[in-house]
Amino acid sequence: MSTSRLEAFSDGVFAIAITLLVLNLQVPRVPPGGLARALLEQWPSYLSYVVSFFVIGIMWVNHHGIFRHIARVDRWLLFLNLVLLLGVCFLPFPTALLGQYIQADQDARVAAIAYACTSSLIAVGFNGIWTYAVHRGLLHPTRVDHERARATILRFGLGLLVYPVGIVVAFFSAPLSLALFALIAVYYLFDQTSSAIAVPGSDPEN
Amino acid sequence: MSTSRLEAFSDGVFAIAITLLVLNLQVPRVPPGGLARALLEQWPSYLSYVVSFFVIGIMWVNHHGIFRHIARVDRWLLFLNLVLLLGVCFLPFPTALLGQYIQADQDARVAAIAYACTSSLIAVGFNGIWTYAVHRGLLHPTRVDHERARATILRFGLGLLVYPVGIVVAFFSAPLSLALFALIAVYYLFDQTSSAIAVPGSDPEN
Amino acid sequence: MSTSRLEAFSDGVFAIAITLLVLNLQVPRVPPGGLARALLEQWPSYLSYVVSFFVIGIMWVNHHGIFRHIARVDRWLLFLNLVLLLGVCFLPFPTALLGQYIQADQDARVAAIAYACTSSLIAVGFNGIWTYAVHRGLLHPTRVDHERARATILRFGLGLLVYPVGIVVAFFSAPLSLALFALIAVYYLFDQTSSAIAVPGSDPEN
Amino acid sequence: MSTSRLEAFSDGVFAIAITLLVLNLQVPRVPPGGLARALLEQWPSYLSYVVSFFVIGIMWVNHHGIFRHIARVDRWLLFLNLVLLLGVCFLPFPTALLGQYIQADQDARVAAIAYACTSSLIAVGFNGIWTYAVHRGLLHPTRVDHERARATILRFGLGLLVYPVGIVVAFFSAPLSLALFALIAVYYLFDQTSSAIAVPGSDPEN
Repeated sequence: MSTSRLEAFSDGVFAIAITLLVLNLQVPRVPPGGLARALLEQWPSYLSYVVSFFVIGIMWVNHHGIFRHIARVDRWLLFLNLVLLLGVCFLPFPTALLGQYIQADQDARVAAIAYACTSSLIAVGFNGIWTYAVHRGLLHPTRVDHERARATILRFGLGLLVYPVGIVVAFFSAPLSLALFALIAVYYLFDQTSSAIAVPGSDPEN
Repeated sequence: MSTSRLEAFSDGVFAIAITLLVLNLQVPRVPPGGLARALLEQWPSYLSYVVSFFVIGIMWVNHHGIFRHIARVDRWLLFLNLVLLLGVCFLPFPTALLGQYIQADQDARVAAIAYACTSSLIAVGFNGIWTYAVHRGLLHPTRVDHERARATILRFGLGLLVYPVGIVVAFFSAPLSLALFALIAVYYLFDQTSSAIAVPGSDPEN
Repeated sequence: MSTSRLEAFSDGVFAIAITLLVLNLQVPRVPPGGLARALLEQWPSYLSYVVSFFVIGIMWVNHHGIFRHIARVDRWLLFLNLVLLLGVCFLPFPTALLGQYIQADQDARVAAIAYACTSSLIAVGFNGIWTYAVHRGLLHPTRVDHERARATILRFGLGLLVYPVGIVVAFFSAPLSLALFALIAVYYLFDQTSSAIAVPGSDPEN
Repeated sequence: MSTSRLEAFSDGVFAIAITLLVLNLQVPRVPPGGLARALLEQWPSYLSYVVSFFVIGIMWVNHHGIFRHIARVDRWLLFLNLVLLLGVCFLPFPTALLGQYIQADQDARVAAIAYACTSSLIAVGFNGIWTYAVHRGLLHPTRVDHERARATILRFGLGLLVYPVGIVVAFFSAPLSLALFALIAVYYLFDQTSSAIAVPGSDPEN
């Protein structure tokens, strides 16, 4: 199977998951004149909505960043990609938990742990895909610098350590853990590692 | 990253957001014989549904109108496009608010303000994308008349002023503000600015 | 704008609308041992689900049947296509109404009228697209037999009469009206009109 | 109609169905400090979520495995594919039933039967597509070994027998039946039958 099918399917899943997040927002049923206040009191829902929106959006960007270096897909890679998508599809649920319970002290931390575990699953998926593709020689033969690609695995692995930290932080403070995941998303938006392994002069697209 | 990926992902998000609007419509639970009346009393939900449907549909048209002039995408443009999509994905929520509260005087204006703010965010996204793409030289080198493209920025910026007006109108009358946004949508359907900057004789597609 | 963009967007909307139908089905909350009976009592929901599923699926087939003869898209055609998609996106709502009220005598007929009106809107969209495309010369210049294409407009127009009949039938019997729409769907699955206007020897695809 | 349209539409439906599964998960409303326990008590929902996620994901893989051998699509094949998609779109409903009732003894078996029947419908769709495509000569003329393709029909037919077994098992034990369907999914992930009928040296993609 070529990567284009896998990418089109993954694109669809990312696009749907990012759009479904809005279903977590409830229309408040209030007595006359109470809407403004009720909407403002829902701020945790908006906050977790916006964070998850950018988290999924930026994961979509990085999914392409990875797959433009991969030339072939085998069954194990399909399976690893399904693990990644499982986490992406699941994310609206802990997002809803955070939106509901972020002000509830002990329960907020439970919600944050659920969020951090889901994010970690996605990170495991990303790392599994990249490590497997590099070791199995599924990268593009001419466009990718294989030496440098192999060197990135360690860096990817280190990045993986941030997520367990996120879980530990979630045990102490839900808002801090949410801020940490927002930060990771911003970091990944501007981290250009994937272009660093491209062979100079080769066309990264197509 | 080429624009085709970004466009395919954005297409998916527009298509899902426009289809999810129907989930705002509730099946009334009524005593025997009461369905017709209950359905008719939901007219604000249908009205806001139809307006938002065409607003999103026409935004989709204009998204393509803009991106067919853009040749390359960098990380900042990706981010600006995510801001635009954030507004599009969020729109079903203020649409539901309007459907629920448009007859509720004070709360109707709160709902209309939420709708106007979301529309303004989308307008900011559109303008940000266009201004950034023109200044950064991301436009198509041979198909776009760069002189004329630069001239459109001011016109785009003026268009941006309509949205704050929509917010102000929402403070006084929810139906008037909804009518204003329906009007803007129709205006953008027939405004052909994007073809005005095409180099004559060049193929705007592909 | 070429037709490929419009078709990709419409494909997305059809795919989402057909999949969202399942959200109309409620998990019954019953005392122990009551699930089997509760599920069987929901048969009207399954019936309207299956009918709407095939109605949307076959509309998708015919949407392609029409657009493979159309070479160019202008703003009015975009608008007519949005009208068609408005009906498609709205269909899950009258489907839910029918599922809820098909056994409720008077309310069943109200639900059936809503269903028939939505179907009629879609039929108007289809006819508008075809009539406009033929008259405006938007059909493919070499692959379509324009004489025969013009002749199909009347036949399309006659087909349009079936839908008001569906509305009238709905005033008397909801199940009969639902059966009528199922029949129309099957008829359109095997009606091959669109290939009848292809120029012999031309490749209808691409 | 070429297969690419059908595949793109089916891809969309698979992607949406797999993402909608998350809507079955409810945010528990609990008194302070009760979230962790309430979330853990929802384990049947997560279990059925994960099983259905991989079932749909792997069906998507096999849908491509089948359609890359098919060169042409006629109206009957479109209809058979709609039957298959009907089952895929419906799957979130029995998944929700299982999540709700898997611990409820008698009702658990009712939910498992619903799940098994839906899976069987999908299996009938897959077999119908393959048998019809082989007999009708819709397979790719040069890339597929037709002798071997014909031989696979019997094997496909035998596979079909597993699903009625799943229904019978569901009459006795819901968890066992869910485990059986998880097992079938894993089996199909690593079963490479579809590549066995490719003509050696031919490019299975495009």
